[in-house]
Amino acid sequence: MRLALLGGTGDIGEAFALRFARDTDVELWIGSRDAAKAESTVERYRAELSDRGVGAQMRGVDNERAAREADVVVLSVPPYYVEDTVDSVADELGPETVLVSPAVGMQGDEDGLHYHPPSAGSVAELAADAAPEGVPVVGAGTNLSAERLADLDESFEMDTLVFGDDDDAATTVADLFDGLDGIRPLDAGPLANASEVESLTALLINVARYNDEIDHTGVRFV
Amino acid sequence: MRLALLGGTGDIGEAFALRFARDTDVELWIGSRDAAKAESTVERYRAELSDRGVGAQMRGVDNERAAREADVVVLSVPPYYVEDTVDSVADELGPETVLVSPAVGMQGDEDGLHYHPPSAGSVAELAADAAPEGVPVVGAGTNLSAERLADLDESFEMDTLVFGDDDDAATTVADLFDGLDGIRPLDAGPLANASEVESLTALLINVARYNDEIDHTGVRFV
Repeated sequence: MRLALLGGTGDIGEAFALRFARDTDVELWIGSRDAAKAESTVERYRAELSDRGVGAQMRGVDNERAAREADVVVLSVPPYYVEDTVDSVADELGPETVLVSPAVGMQGDEDGLHYHPPSAGSVAELAADAAPEGVPVVGAGTNLSAERLADLDESFEMDTLVFGDDDDAATTVADLFDGLDGIRPLDAGPLANASEVESLTALLINVARYNDEIDHTGVRFV
Repeated sequence: MRLALLGGTGDIGEAFALRFARDTDVELWIGSRDAAKAESTVERYRAELSDRGVGAQMRGVDNERAAREADVVVLSVPPYYVEDTVDSVADELGPETVLVSPAVGMQGDEDGLHYHPPSAGSVAELAADAAPEGVPVVGAGTNLSAERLADLDESFEMDTLVFGDDDDAATTVADLFDGLDGIRPLDAGPLANASEVESLTALLINVARYNDEIDHTGVRFV
């Protein structure tokens, strides 16, 4: 299994890179618009993993190359870059490639963070609209704290919701996340249910803000 | 502490009546538009509690009387009755009364349930707009499954989110829910954060629908 993290030098990219490298045997292709930046970032990831005795199958390349090589392509970019990122790699995606959307649109004010979806209804649906015909989009990882995952000393028991219209693609992505220690993937249905899933991220951040005993919040369905 | 459950003969009213009667020493005033229905429903609740050796301080009255007598008034009615219910008891509410909004607007389709807030932005804000000036509104219990709570054989460890603009009122309501076995109240901030909280209910129902291992879903922030 080859996993590409487009924008894999950012916060959620780092979180996924470190966790997937440590906990699974997937081959990681870290993508950036700037291949040199991807390479230097991979050196940093390798060093952190090496300190823990973990060897990584990981390469830093440009986003196009990462998308071309991978079975599953994660759009680890801010929500306002999702459409452009999909466009930039559209020619590299085959019908066997699965696109994963972990981003969420939010806006903050003095009270907290508020869900702010794009006009497509959700970031996942925006990605699906932008994707070439036949390339399935699966939402996953939207509710996972990048900071918490990137700290490999952190252990937890958290759920992440997986949603999409292509059952095989959703199963592929659920199986991937199931490989991460302490993460349980749960099915949230088709893309039409995306906004209720993505909205949860703003709630989690608000709960962390207003409760001293909770730092980076995750969720467990019980 | 006197707790009124307006529309206390419905599903969430039954759930709260049974749990608060069993787990706390609050005095319960079960309200209905029809006092006779409230009385007969209270007999049913008493019988169920009595089977478990629980005596209840519980009366069935009309909504107006329940609101007049209580310190905390729960709007345990469907979302489309919230405004009318607040209007019907407005003259009974003093500045010491706390209104609690547990309802959520949702619409279902073939994919699942979707969050469908009123134009006020959320049911809690709708209740706040309808409430007389100076009467604080606190959202709470929105994410608790009525069916699960009403089954007194069920035990759980679940969180419920409490939110509102009046800190003292929110604390009063949080303390009430803290008295229920297995329920931990968490602060979600002011009413402006209501829609992210209320939206969670639709997600919980979707998660229960799509995952065989989960029946009536609750949530735990971890």
